[in-house]
Amino acid sequence: MKKKKILEAFMFRHACKEFDSEKKISKEDFAFILETARLSPSSFGFEPWHFLIIQKKELRETFVEVAWGGKKQFPTASHLLFALVKKAYFMRHNSEYIQNFMQEIQQLPQDIIEKKTDLFKTFQESDFDLLESERAMTDWATRQTYIPLANMMTVAAMIGIDSCPMEGFDRKKMDSLLATELNIETDKFSMAYALAFGYRKEEPKAKTRQNIEAITSWFEED
Amino acid sequence: MKKKKILEAFMFRHACKEFDSEKKISKEDFAFILETARLSPSSFGFEPWHFLIIQKKELRETFVEVAWGGKKQFPTASHLLFALVKKAYFMRHNSEYIQNFMQEIQQLPQDIIEKKTDLFKTFQESDFDLLESERAMTDWATRQTYIPLANMMTVAAMIGIDSCPMEGFDRKKMDSLLATELNIETDKFSMAYALAFGYRKEEPKAKTRQNIEAITSWFEED
Repeated sequence: MKKKKILEAFMFRHACKEFDSEKKISKEDFAFILETARLSPSSFGFEPWHFLIIQKKELRETFVEVAWGGKKQFPTASHLLFALVKKAYFMRHNSEYIQNFMQEIQQLPQDIIEKKTDLFKTFQESDFDLLESERAMTDWATRQTYIPLANMMTVAAMIGIDSCPMEGFDRKKMDSLLATELNIETDKFSMAYALAFGYRKEEPKAKTRQNIEAITSWFEED
Repeated sequence: MKKKKILEAFMFRHACKEFDSEKKISKEDFAFILETARLSPSSFGFEPWHFLIIQKKELRETFVEVAWGGKKQFPTASHLLFALVKKAYFMRHNSEYIQNFMQEIQQLPQDIIEKKTDLFKTFQESDFDLLESERAMTDWATRQTYIPLANMMTVAAMIGIDSCPMEGFDRKKMDSLLATELNIETDKFSMAYALAFGYRKEEPKAKTRQNIEAITSWFEED
């Protein structure tokens, strides 16, 4: 692929504050965006995510009340996605989910499953102390969900679709709404972010970034 | 851009275990990959990251000792990147970094700076309880670094370059090495991940993923 075209997509992408509510993303284009989320990598390949697509107007009106942003994005977005993260219930090394995942999805042979389980256990015990608290595990799993987040925003921009990521919520109220409105088991899932998609209503401000020298350091052979 | 070509890049990308050490990424191609990291979005746009590019053989040999993986990737990679995350020292709402960032980089007028500072403070106080602990702040900032992680892997694949992300380390020893070997102030920065780049030596196994129905739920108008 052409580097110039790719960089143009990175310049095109911005946090779109308001969408043209008349313009809808085609089914095919949105399936394509979701497909890049599905193909995204994650730690040990365990895909600690689930995506809700909130198209019902009434639901958007309910949820926008507990979001920090989204006042304009929620109602005008062509598609509104909520990313849930799988909590310790799923992500503990000895969970049924992880064991089934290695057998059914990754189709690993039994000896490899045992080795991978041991490695994953040691990783969870020592590296981030993931077994110490529900929060530590959720935080680690949530990092993984930012990989499909980036991929969805980037590929959307590549086909001319705008997006806006939102990670600020009243967390307690959000959990409560996920349970009452969508039947989500919030002991097993937590909100990672909302991601709105559509077509921009106005052109964005110029992009600002630190320059490359400010964010990189090279350690080369003398 | 063509959706088919983009999906081909997602199928091409895999966690490459060993690179062909004879093949080097051109300066131009690597600068392009870094440019997509630079243009990546982050919460409030505060870019809580710094990238080290570790090309010195001796350094790679030192650091691989504290990594869970990387035995083959570190020595054979054409380019080896470490992503550091900016800790509370930088990321607290009232830090010098944040204030300067809004003035110098984002070039916001004073009244907007004041509003944004208030909003950021409220966000940090209430949403993730980010001010409660150094760890909470670091975890939140680390999520952001997974956005350039995804973008770098994806765009590399789009130009035929392989990569391997690694997030498992002996964290205490890693901090200690960052300080002694690279003069990193580890009270201000923490290791987020390593990301190796190069050209594959062998073809990967077939990709496995849950199907799209397993990871999505739709809430549509009746």
